[in-house]
Amino acid sequence: MRAVGKDKIRVDAYGKVTGEAKYTADLEPKNILHGKVYHSTIGNGLVKSIDTSEAEKVPGVVKILTCFDVPDIQFPTAGHPWSVEKAHQDICDRKLLNQRVRIYGDDIACVIAENEVACDQALRLLKVEYEEYPVMTTVEEALAEGAQALHPDLRKDNVIVHSHMTMGEKDYTFEEGLKKAKEEYGEENIVTHEQVYDTPKISHCHIELPVSFAYVDVNDKITIVCSTQIPHIVRLYTAMALGVPAGRVRIIKPYIGGGFGNKQDVLYEPLNAYMSMQVGGRPVRLEISREETIYGTRTRHQITGHTKAVVTKDGQILSRKMEAFANNGGYASHGHAICANCGNVFKELYIDKIGTEVDCWTVYTNAPTAGAMRGYGIPQSVWITECLIDDLARKIGMDPLEIRLKNCIPAGFKDPHNGITFHSYGLKEAMLKGAELAKWKEKRAEYDKPQSGDKRRGIGMAIFCYKTGVHPIALETAAARMVLNQDGSCQLFMGATEIGQGADTVFTQMAAEASGIRYEEVYIGSTQDTDTSPFDTGAYASRQTYVSGMACKKVAEEFKDRILDYAEYMLNNAVQDFSKTVYVEEVSAAAKKIRELLSVSEETEISKDSLDLVDSQIVEKKSGNPLLPLAILADTAFYSLDKSVHIAAECTNHCKSNTFSSGVCYAEVEVDMPLGLVEILRIVEVHDSGIIINHDTARGQVHGGMAQSLGFGLSEDLLVDPKTGKVLNANLLDFKIPTAMDVPDLEVDFVELEDPTGPYGNKSLGEPPVIAAAPAVRNAILQATGVAMNVAPMTSQRLTDAFREAGLIKTISVD
Amino acid sequence: MRAVGKDKIRVDAYGKVTGEAKYTADLEPKNILHGKVYHSTIGNGLVKSIDTSEAEKVPGVVKILTCFDVPDIQFPTAGHPWSVEKAHQDICDRKLLNQRVRIYGDDIACVIAENEVACDQALRLLKVEYEEYPVMTTVEEALAEGAQALHPDLRKDNVIVHSHMTMGEKDYTFEEGLKKAKEEYGEENIVTHEQVYDTPKISHCHIELPVSFAYVDVNDKITIVCSTQIPHIVRLYTAMALGVPAGRVRIIKPYIGGGFGNKQDVLYEPLNAYMSMQVGGRPVRLEISREETIYGTRTRHQITGHTKAVVTKDGQILSRKMEAFANNGGYASHGHAICANCGNVFKELYIDKIGTEVDCWTVYTNAPTAGAMRGYGIPQSVWITECLIDDLARKIGMDPLEIRLKNCIPAGFKDPHNGITFHSYGLKEAMLKGAELAKWKEKRAEYDKPQSGDKRRGIGMAIFCYKTGVHPIALETAAARMVLNQDGSCQLFMGATEIGQGADTVFTQMAAEASGIRYEEVYIGSTQDTDTSPFDTGAYASRQTYVSGMACKKVAEEFKDRILDYAEYMLNNAVQDFSKTVYVEEVSAAAKKIRELLSVSEETEISKDSLDLVDSQIVEKKSGNPLLPLAILADTAFYSLDKSVHIAAECTNHCKSNTFSSGVCYAEVEVDMPLGLVEILRIVEVHDSGIIINHDTARGQVHGGMAQSLGFGLSEDLLVDPKTGKVLNANLLDFKIPTAMDVPDLEVDFVELEDPTGPYGNKSLGEPPVIAAAPAVRNAILQATGVAMNVAPMTSQRLTDAFREAGLIKTISVD
Repeated sequence: MRAVGKDKIRVDAYGKVTGEAKYTADLEPKNILHGKVYHSTIGNGLVKSIDTSEAEKVPGVVKILTCFDVPDIQFPTAGHPWSVEKAHQDICDRKLLNQRVRIYGDDIACVIAENEVACDQALRLLKVEYEEYPVMTTVEEALAEGAQALHPDLRKDNVIVHSHMTMGEKDYTFEEGLKKAKEEYGEENIVTHEQVYDTPKISHCHIELPVSFAYVDVNDKITIVCSTQIPHIVRLYTAMALGVPAGRVRIIKPYIGGGFGNKQDVLYEPLNAYMSMQVGGRPVRLEISREETIYGTRTRHQITGHTKAVVTKDGQILSRKMEAFANNGGYASHGHAICANCGNVFKELYIDKIGTEVDCWTVYTNAPTAGAMRGYGIPQSVWITECLIDDLARKIGMDPLEIRLKNCIPAGFKDPHNGITFHSYGLKEAMLKGAELAKWKEKRAEYDKPQSGDKRRGIGMAIFCYKTGVHPIALETAAARMVLNQDGSCQLFMGATEIGQGADTVFTQMAAEASGIRYEEVYIGSTQDTDTSPFDTGAYASRQTYVSGMACKKVAEEFKDRILDYAEYMLNNAVQDFSKTVYVEEVSAAAKKIRELLSVSEETEISKDSLDLVDSQIVEKKSGNPLLPLAILADTAFYSLDKSVHIAAECTNHCKSNTFSSGVCYAEVEVDMPLGLVEILRIVEVHDSGIIINHDTARGQVHGGMAQSLGFGLSEDLLVDPKTGKVLNANLLDFKIPTAMDVPDLEVDFVELEDPTGPYGNKSLGEPPVIAAAPAVRNAILQATGVAMNVAPMTSQRLTDAFREAGLIKTISVD
Repeated sequence: MRAVGKDKIRVDAYGKVTGEAKYTADLEPKNILHGKVYHSTIGNGLVKSIDTSEAEKVPGVVKILTCFDVPDIQFPTAGHPWSVEKAHQDICDRKLLNQRVRIYGDDIACVIAENEVACDQALRLLKVEYEEYPVMTTVEEALAEGAQALHPDLRKDNVIVHSHMTMGEKDYTFEEGLKKAKEEYGEENIVTHEQVYDTPKISHCHIELPVSFAYVDVNDKITIVCSTQIPHIVRLYTAMALGVPAGRVRIIKPYIGGGFGNKQDVLYEPLNAYMSMQVGGRPVRLEISREETIYGTRTRHQITGHTKAVVTKDGQILSRKMEAFANNGGYASHGHAICANCGNVFKELYIDKIGTEVDCWTVYTNAPTAGAMRGYGIPQSVWITECLIDDLARKIGMDPLEIRLKNCIPAGFKDPHNGITFHSYGLKEAMLKGAELAKWKEKRAEYDKPQSGDKRRGIGMAIFCYKTGVHPIALETAAARMVLNQDGSCQLFMGATEIGQGADTVFTQMAAEASGIRYEEVYIGSTQDTDTSPFDTGAYASRQTYVSGMACKKVAEEFKDRILDYAEYMLNNAVQDFSKTVYVEEVSAAAKKIRELLSVSEETEISKDSLDLVDSQIVEKKSGNPLLPLAILADTAFYSLDKSVHIAAECTNHCKSNTFSSGVCYAEVEVDMPLGLVEILRIVEVHDSGIIINHDTARGQVHGGMAQSLGFGLSEDLLVDPKTGKVLNANLLDFKIPTAMDVPDLEVDFVELEDPTGPYGNKSLGEPPVIAAAPAVRNAILQATGVAMNVAPMTSQRLTDAFREAGLIKTISVD
């Protein structure tokens, strides 16, 4: 391997450090108009009227659009590949501007003006009359008898989808399984546990806010330059929302400053396009604020898991059940997919001897809309699962590592529901490697000794698995294109999107590896443009290195093949066609050399089967002996009067495989009991993501994910006013994400098992790092304090409340 | 035909009228730096020093670069495809900034500043010390004994190239031919004629000035957005000029406001790139003024033709000779190609019974640099040739139409020098059709009657031929790419450039025709980007519809083939794969229908050979019966869970054919003798450009060309001060191009013979219209007045001088 597995410097490192990299806002044309959105000031109701007369008088205001002006078209927003199967199509439940208000801050009008000040002035002068309905911010309220259905045209109640799954030989319900357990093992040999675990609503907090600008180009092309993870999906849904054919919409995605799934939804792009269309196609920019982003775009689902389990006293899990309730907020967005994913991983992390039962409910409420966020239901699933496992282990007095090694899914397992095989599966290897790194045995024994006093220590762990992409539930397809340059370098175009994760770098490595062109001479085009880029569904589901990477490898192989075709032509026609060229000597010498190497006569035709491309040199395949620089071949292929060919290749990879990544997190903590503060003494994560294409960027991915998981576990919690549905902490001062000061040293290692299905043996790595740190810390706190925290985040307030309730600390009187 | 030959509205019509179309200046990013060039104030010499100290103090000045700062690299600028054969490579004779000054206004320094005012202030404060040499603005001076060689590193004298060609059985010189004529026909039966004809130096006067902006992007990509006809050539020569590999340079060409050949040269793009590189890659814009454009970019060559001819008294041309001297100015640019082209057409318009001799000289002088301009030497050639033919006809008293019909090259003729066959050649048909339209016979007879008085009338004609593209002299290669959209529309990408001539429209028509997709659903990407667009050498030599059009046709056929592959799959797998899809009914019905149409059983496999794509419908080939809309196929190909393919195609057309267009112009004029004013009473042009793809845009091309030719013949003349080399009329007030008020009604017709080599039978049309109007008017004046004007333009001054000399008017005393 010359490029894959080498820790190449990111292709965009220098450009991003120096500011060469262009983001959406850098590309705005001169004389652009500004747009702003008017948000509802109620959480549930109906807009009866909007008086725009005063607002229209503001100098600089060009146009005001309200929910009464937009097309009567409902469209979906989830960044899923569209489906030609009705059952897999996303839910169409919102308009460009909504008359029916379902969240506090719903989009009901917008202003287009020559400058932002005029926009703001006009927004303040809009007068809205509402019909108000009672607000339901929780699943309980929305599911209550007689609760108002928020989308009566689509659902008679607020259940978006409910699904019931069982795993095991006989499709037992938990109660049936429990009965069987009692019969088979005897009541005295089993232990049961029942507990509700809860997770927070979270904002993604990507650095770059959702921003776009739109204009109508020649040919009536509605063009949107935007910060999105899913340009081709934005194209399609924008077309649906506007009621125009997809070919009339063009999406351009420059570099983007993070997305974490929030930009795996179609956000304000369709409205932005409509705004431009309403002002004669002039460019209009629409950048929303941090506050609007937090309350009005998407959030991580708050999922509550009601669990039951039965285990033998020697640690054999017999049966588990989870009822998961996902609060989806006012609009479906990714709908049931996230809660279903939560349910799947509950099943897929452990194998229950008798059986597993899962019920998943996804519910409309008047809370902020939940959608995709890095991990896609699995951080919630693993929080629930891994709290439960440690609670079970504690109940039977078993080492948490032991119970996991004993019950986790084995390599080669095939999920009966989705048919995915765990082709390579280094979970056990990761657990053991991590245990050694974290000194699990020694630390566990040390902290198991009775502790008292204000500071107590513990070590905890959590495991996870994560599948790679969305096959076979949905479509996995990707395309790639390569084009030769005159100097022997090449362009690589992916439909897949760099969103900060380093995708462009690993694609470049794979293309270099597969083509034989030097890494430094593979120029990747980072901007996706739905008019010119190959198709790809985008950045999500940790799919790109695996799915799009295969397209990349495939196109690079085809590209090399076409180069070798030309090399074959050059070597066989060295005398007649090249005599007048500046390369006559090089080509003649190469033709002579390969015939000598192959010990054949001067008349023998050279086959491309004897050739290879290595390090940008045409070489004799067996010996690796260099024959001709690719630069000479390229210059000739472009400019030969005898045979001019513009070498390019374009391929689709329809991926029909999947496989599981996995890993473990070990966290060692010291808990300050009276203050309820958790200090992470050490945190170690070991991942099995197959063969790592680039260790530096892979470690970067894991670092970011671990930090986000610590936020999930300790501080991040979007608070919603139950009376109005208004978000109470829609800003980065009150919504607490970890800062550089809060994040401890993060230790990362890998177990590299080659996956037979992934390009160069890789599998998902993007999302797995965001899963396990939170429950590992929770389980460490459990060891340190004996207190089982069941609700994330484990804030000081929650910890001290729990410690007080457990009698571990006393109430301090402030007087 | 559904698209080709139909007068479709231009694809960019609406966009250009409404301002949706984006030109270079529309795309400039915010906070761009401004660049300006300092031009020499001498015409021949050496820069000894440049003092920048005062200029650097101007607030806002960021950087000043002089000829002492730039890389010591000489590079070419001609918009020819590069060649891997030394003999065909263009001359490298200039640097980014030149210390050796060879024209008045040479580029010797430049300023980069935060705004244009600071640039101007700094330019005024530069202090330059020169060593001055005598200025030679004419060919005579530059060829004189002892004249200083302007490029002594490349040529020992100022002759860029001299070529000598003969045509006829025995390679006779003219003198040998004359001898043979006398021997064979007898002196009494032949007439000889000797005359010098001269042409003006002309500025292109495109509306949009040369403008570009450059920045360094991620991956160290030197990116230039510029108004050019030849993006891929600009890429290569910029790389040469900067000493970097071509892959590091990226050229983006938005819509451009005309070029007429001036932008078929690499102008300020390399300097602009270098300016950006010297300020850390920040964007720098460089737009030059109209004045700088006129004196400092390129001009049409002033070519003087010394001719001799011998003809029998009954009008058989026996032998002709032309010695052509082209004043190339200070730099080679397109070098000898233009003067050689002038020589070629002198040979190729008529067949001389005994033989033809041509000598072409291209000469460096200190006049403004000459380069490509629409017509590329042929307006000069045809001026010389067609003045000569009319003078011969007059001398023997023969009708000018008769002598042309008798002697012009016949269809099927093969040029012995370049091997080009006149495959289809409607010159005679055009002459006869035009004669009828212009009422040649009647008018000629009428105006042959003796005239006197102040106003005299005449009718004249001139013919022309023009080959299509540059094969076999240089490379003709073009690539194209098509991509299917989700809605069944498609993208078409050409490397060929729309420069206002309507290329995008005819490409769209051809792609629609060949693919079977509706014209309205073929979206052409008009911006060429050397990173993403297919390769093409660019807009010149009237090559695009013929050469790039073939790539377009080829790719559309391949694209259709891939669509039919998918249609075949759909029809054969209608039952199993489509049962769950929303298209189940359509696909099943289509499968049933085609089997019925073909009278085959349900089990019979459908072959794509039975299918076609017509009007965006998959149809049964023989009956044309529609089976399935392409929109359904496209949606399925994108999103099918069974078979997802992103249908695209990319092709190269290495064109190894050529053919000749031709035509005629008839002009009827009234000459105001005392004022020397020429009124065009009627002007009719008939073109044979093969099958016309779009008559509306074709007529537009001819109108523009005729207007330019009238400027050539009557008013345009760039005046150079013989002492300094300074252009005396470098502005649009003093350099007289025809205005809308000056241009008469222009009548256009076509003779449409299908050319076997061109796509859909087309051949060159871009340049032919610029050739014949000037000599036709000249020959009309000859009939009207009996005065043979030998120098263009035929200004009032020149006409009255000639009339006075001929005794037709008297000197009017002003006192």
